[in-house]
Amino acid sequence: MPSRDQVKRLVESAPFQRAIIGVIVLNAVVLGLMTSDQFDKGALQTLDYVLLGIFVVELVLRLYAHGWAFFRDPWSVFDLLVVAIALIPASGGLSILRALRIIRALRLVTAVPGIRRVVRGLLAAMPGMFSIVLLLCLVLYVGAVLATEMYGASTPQHFGSIGRSLFTLFQVMTGEAWPDVAGDVLEHHPSAWIFFVAYILVSTFVVLNLFTAVVVSAMESERQEDQTVDATLLAEIRALRGEIAQLRAERAELP
Amino acid sequence: MPSRDQVKRLVESAPFQRAIIGVIVLNAVVLGLMTSDQFDKGALQTLDYVLLGIFVVELVLRLYAHGWAFFRDPWSVFDLLVVAIALIPASGGLSILRALRIIRALRLVTAVPGIRRVVRGLLAAMPGMFSIVLLLCLVLYVGAVLATEMYGASTPQHFGSIGRSLFTLFQVMTGEAWPDVAGDVLEHHPSAWIFFVAYILVSTFVVLNLFTAVVVSAMESERQEDQTVDATLLAEIRALRGEIAQLRAERAELP
Amino acid sequence: MPSRDQVKRLVESAPFQRAIIGVIVLNAVVLGLMTSDQFDKGALQTLDYVLLGIFVVELVLRLYAHGWAFFRDPWSVFDLLVVAIALIPASGGLSILRALRIIRALRLVTAVPGIRRVVRGLLAAMPGMFSIVLLLCLVLYVGAVLATEMYGASTPQHFGSIGRSLFTLFQVMTGEAWPDVAGDVLEHHPSAWIFFVAYILVSTFVVLNLFTAVVVSAMESERQEDQTVDATLLAEIRALRGEIAQLRAERAELP
Amino acid sequence: MPSRDQVKRLVESAPFQRAIIGVIVLNAVVLGLMTSDQFDKGALQTLDYVLLGIFVVELVLRLYAHGWAFFRDPWSVFDLLVVAIALIPASGGLSILRALRIIRALRLVTAVPGIRRVVRGLLAAMPGMFSIVLLLCLVLYVGAVLATEMYGASTPQHFGSIGRSLFTLFQVMTGEAWPDVAGDVLEHHPSAWIFFVAYILVSTFVVLNLFTAVVVSAMESERQEDQTVDATLLAEIRALRGEIAQLRAERAELP
Repeated sequence: MPSRDQVKRLVESAPFQRAIIGVIVLNAVVLGLMTSDQFDKGALQTLDYVLLGIFVVELVLRLYAHGWAFFRDPWSVFDLLVVAIALIPASGGLSILRALRIIRALRLVTAVPGIRRVVRGLLAAMPGMFSIVLLLCLVLYVGAVLATEMYGASTPQHFGSIGRSLFTLFQVMTGEAWPDVAGDVLEHHPSAWIFFVAYILVSTFVVLNLFTAVVVSAMESERQEDQTVDATLLAEIRALRGEIAQLRAERAELP
Repeated sequence: MPSRDQVKRLVESAPFQRAIIGVIVLNAVVLGLMTSDQFDKGALQTLDYVLLGIFVVELVLRLYAHGWAFFRDPWSVFDLLVVAIALIPASGGLSILRALRIIRALRLVTAVPGIRRVVRGLLAAMPGMFSIVLLLCLVLYVGAVLATEMYGASTPQHFGSIGRSLFTLFQVMTGEAWPDVAGDVLEHHPSAWIFFVAYILVSTFVVLNLFTAVVVSAMESERQEDQTVDATLLAEIRALRGEIAQLRAERAELP
Repeated sequence: MPSRDQVKRLVESAPFQRAIIGVIVLNAVVLGLMTSDQFDKGALQTLDYVLLGIFVVELVLRLYAHGWAFFRDPWSVFDLLVVAIALIPASGGLSILRALRIIRALRLVTAVPGIRRVVRGLLAAMPGMFSIVLLLCLVLYVGAVLATEMYGASTPQHFGSIGRSLFTLFQVMTGEAWPDVAGDVLEHHPSAWIFFVAYILVSTFVVLNLFTAVVVSAMESERQEDQTVDATLLAEIRALRGEIAQLRAERAELP
Repeated sequence: MPSRDQVKRLVESAPFQRAIIGVIVLNAVVLGLMTSDQFDKGALQTLDYVLLGIFVVELVLRLYAHGWAFFRDPWSVFDLLVVAIALIPASGGLSILRALRIIRALRLVTAVPGIRRVVRGLLAAMPGMFSIVLLLCLVLYVGAVLATEMYGASTPQHFGSIGRSLFTLFQVMTGEAWPDVAGDVLEHHPSAWIFFVAYILVSTFVVLNLFTAVVVSAMESERQEDQTVDATLLAEIRALRGEIAQLRAERAELP
């Protein structure tokens, strides 16, 4: 039986990782083909089981190689969960679970370093956005309760319940089809334009600031480099002052 | 009776503020549930009154603790107004006033420091946007008068009155459904495409600059930090020159 | 008869300019009211003539005060043109010319310093955008000729002539209603999705860069300030080197 | 027969290049007119052949002038390909190939230096976007497979096959008509709002980061200038330190 280090070297080797990327891509293609009726479902299903088997073997190898450290790496846990989800539909028969097998294709995110870096960047921008997203949710919720109370009775297709209102106002926030919604409401409530204009202005403005936060956060890292340069400059100048102070001290010692 | 300072310490304590945040969230949920017919309206109404009572007590405590200084803090005045609005529907019976009770949920903005900071940021960006918003309103108004004069007679559903034109052009400005509006107008006025293309180009360009102003303003604060570093560098170099000047002066004193 | 300087001082005085702003706003309101049938058209018409008269008098005063220099200031020429346009409909009877009277309200742009600054900023961003706009027009034109040749016969309502194709593709570029257009075309040309996806990707990407150019140009002026600080730093350091060189020269002179 | 250098001087001369730009524009206009039935097709066709002949002569001259170096310049290869595409429809009769003649107008991109610079900028931003575009494709593909599996049976008009799902989700990603699509799906799957909201949030967030990458990349070149200034500052300060070290060395040599 191979040692832990040997397995570790194997699973971390470039050819092994390239092979796994190939298996993920192949699996994504197979699952894509399975949505069509033109192909032999049985053969594709078998191929899918085989590929799933490869993933299971790969995960077992990585678990053996890294031990408990495997669970400290969030990307590894993600891989494990994604394969675990894929294992459920293999036994069950629910269509939703069967559909979720394609989630396995998201393993590309952890397997391709470039995509991994992008996703890490996206996640890093999250905390700075938290308060703005909370504010956005608050605006959405207050808008939905208001709209349900005021327009729920007359236009139940848009604002019949708080859930429906939330969905309608989410659509309005994405800038979609709001003239239709507003048209239906305005027939019964001529003053509803105040609500729509106010809601659109406020939500657009908050979304704009969400966006600005992402741009500014993306520039943060750039600026930190600049600050390093500035810090170097400062250090150089301070060293210079030190040398001049020494020059004066030496002169004072002269007779 | 407790002293002013004791009350102040109480209302500014973390547990008290967390409790108030809890009451605001609970109140928002209660008002959300009241939009549905599945729940006991009477019980929810009673609960709403109780929570409103808690807000009134909290405001009285804060008024007692801060005295007139309470009115100098705009966030406190906002809290007072929001609860005051909530008190009107409790006595009256108009649906619009009842609906406005949910405005109380906006107290979360003043109660959660993170959201408060975001809103302060949004408000700080306002003055720099004032002139652009004025220009946007001018473009909207001129466009509305033009459209009403030119297309009001043939397409009253879009441009029948100045109010309707303003609303239609606001929709066009948000980039919504303008092909429909333009289609209706083009049937009667084949040259109307000039108006729509010009209006869309101008308004998009102004909105784009509004947006740019927000992004640039968001970067302002970052840049001010950079300038502080630059100022430090400058001060160091000037100090250096002073020392060298002194060195030369000392040398001149030598025999 | 007052001297040139007296008139100049008058037309440049703050109260005179505030009064003119007031007249412009009043005129804009009057023209807005004239779109409605609820008001006495005759009285509003008379008021409009009076206000137009005030503009003419103001322009004559400014022409007298500034002489030929009046025509060297583009803002003044704009004021003159806008009032001249307004004078044509007063004599003619065409609805389009009558509608264009509202253009006078755009005099607010030259009269209010804040808006003037914004518009100057917008115009300053133009030259940097010229090449991108040219590229965008090229993309639009090539797309329109292609679409007319390929889809003109089957969907004349969207791509019947080059003019219609340009308008349709302008709509698609603003991100409006393209699923409807694409749906109509796809019925006859199943491979048309390639055209739409390619056109949307290319035009969005170019528009995005247009946008980026505006943001970067807005930051230019900020950066120029930073560069001034950097230049000051450099000058200080060079002066320092000069002083040290002098120090060494003085020492060399010592016996 | 003229020498290579003479031909090179000719094809690189400003009048020659302006003439070629003129021919490109004229050709674009001719191809535009050919989409209409109001003009003499025969005459336009002849004119098109003549202009195409001019392009062929120009390319032959440039090939002769530059020799194999012609193929090392990607812009030249682009010109060659575009004219080659134009030569195919001249012999064949397929409508798609005839339509592609207009691609020749894209030679303006290589002929006008301003547009060339913009396109070079766009292409330069590409590599930095590669990983994000890959992630976007992954999100689109996973979404399409999921939607086909889950909603393909009930709403074949939107999600009937993986190709159709990809097109529908591309539409949703551009923010178009998604309330219609969602409406159709929600009739059969009340929980489909989870899919749409999740897909819109994820894809918008990734697109936003694509956008941010473009803005940041556009600012890169600006920042590099700043860094040059910083580098100059650093070099000056280091030179200063060197001089002071020399000063001390000279002093040490003194008796």
